[in-house]
Amino acid sequence: MVKYPDGTKKVKTNNVRAKSSAANRGMELEKLISAANDYYLMNDIALITKRPTPINVVKIDYAKGAKITNAYFEKQSTTDFNGVYKNRYFDFEAKSTRLKTSFPLNNIYEHQITHLENVIRHGGIAFFIVQFTAFDEYYVLPASDVIAAYRGEGRKSIPYQTFKEKGILVPLKLNPILDYLPAVIKLFNL
Amino acid sequence: MVKYPDGTKKVKTNNVRAKSSAANRGMELEKLISAANDYYLMNDIALITKRPTPINVVKIDYAKGAKITNAYFEKQSTTDFNGVYKNRYFDFEAKSTRLKTSFPLNNIYEHQITHLENVIRHGGIAFFIVQFTAFDEYYVLPASDVIAAYRGEGRKSIPYQTFKEKGILVPLKLNPILDYLPAVIKLFNL
Repeated sequence: MVKYPDGTKKVKTNNVRAKSSAANRGMELEKLISAANDYYLMNDIALITKRPTPINVVKIDYAKGAKITNAYFEKQSTTDFNGVYKNRYFDFEAKSTRLKTSFPLNNIYEHQITHLENVIRHGGIAFFIVQFTAFDEYYVLPASDVIAAYRGEGRKSIPYQTFKEKGILVPLKLNPILDYLPAVIKLFNL
Repeated sequence: MVKYPDGTKKVKTNNVRAKSSAANRGMELEKLISAANDYYLMNDIALITKRPTPINVVKIDYAKGAKITNAYFEKQSTTDFNGVYKNRYFDFEAKSTRLKTSFPLNNIYEHQITHLENVIRHGGIAFFIVQFTAFDEYYVLPASDVIAAYRGEGRKSIPYQTFKEKGILVPLKLNPILDYLPAVIKLFNL
């Protein structure tokens, strides 16, 4: 996904929510995942890193200390995150949706699906972390389910219900807020 | 390593060289590795990808279609390449040197060494591919040897002889030219 730096988002306060849930308000999904990755690294649990956003550099001004003066964001041809947990290769993509009934696949690229198919073929652990912002819910879903929906006939989306049935809901905690690893371990019997 | 796009390099022709060796003249190490990675992917052998060069974006002109007008290259805090081969996580860095007697460690960052230590601790396969341009030779060396030299006392370089003894020379071929995977498999008994 092409991401542009943006400002903080105002999110309506909801007092009945738990504190751990409240703590993530306004935080982007990517930041929640990176915070969890920092926690996993610091506590020697796993090593997961974010791939930098690919940028096509058109022009560099060397007179100004290699300042890039003309460049464009490129589509990520792989996924946002990969790494290693107990010898095993991890590779996953993080996405958010505001919809309440399904997760649309129109902002997932063919390249990414092909990449995840390759990950699976070579024995890697491939999955998605999907945020339903309307419910403040985060699910881990095997990439194979997303691939099946993407490659299948008809409507290109995955029903919310599928996440409940085939995915695992990540309960929000204090630290790390989005502790997604136990869900991955359970889903893939690691 | 911070890399700037550059033009092609003129390399002196040497007629006694084998054709496969001649084919890589002027090609950068990174391109040779990416060409090998393409070959491994196409032939279902492994999935290794290059991390994009991280760029710190300062200013974006949205009026011109999200054109980046001010940005700077950042140091890579991890390594250039990672991926998966037969369920196992790979992570490596590629470096060239013009020196004939040793590989200097002054362009390897503390962050990268720490990253590779983490890779090893989590069961990943960590190594370096080092090109000695003077000899047109390419070696695969376990990252543990580079880490030991970096963390050790005294001179921060690895003698050329160490590559001959502890590394594996990658013989240049026609396709892929830099078929480095067999050396990795042998070094790590994969």
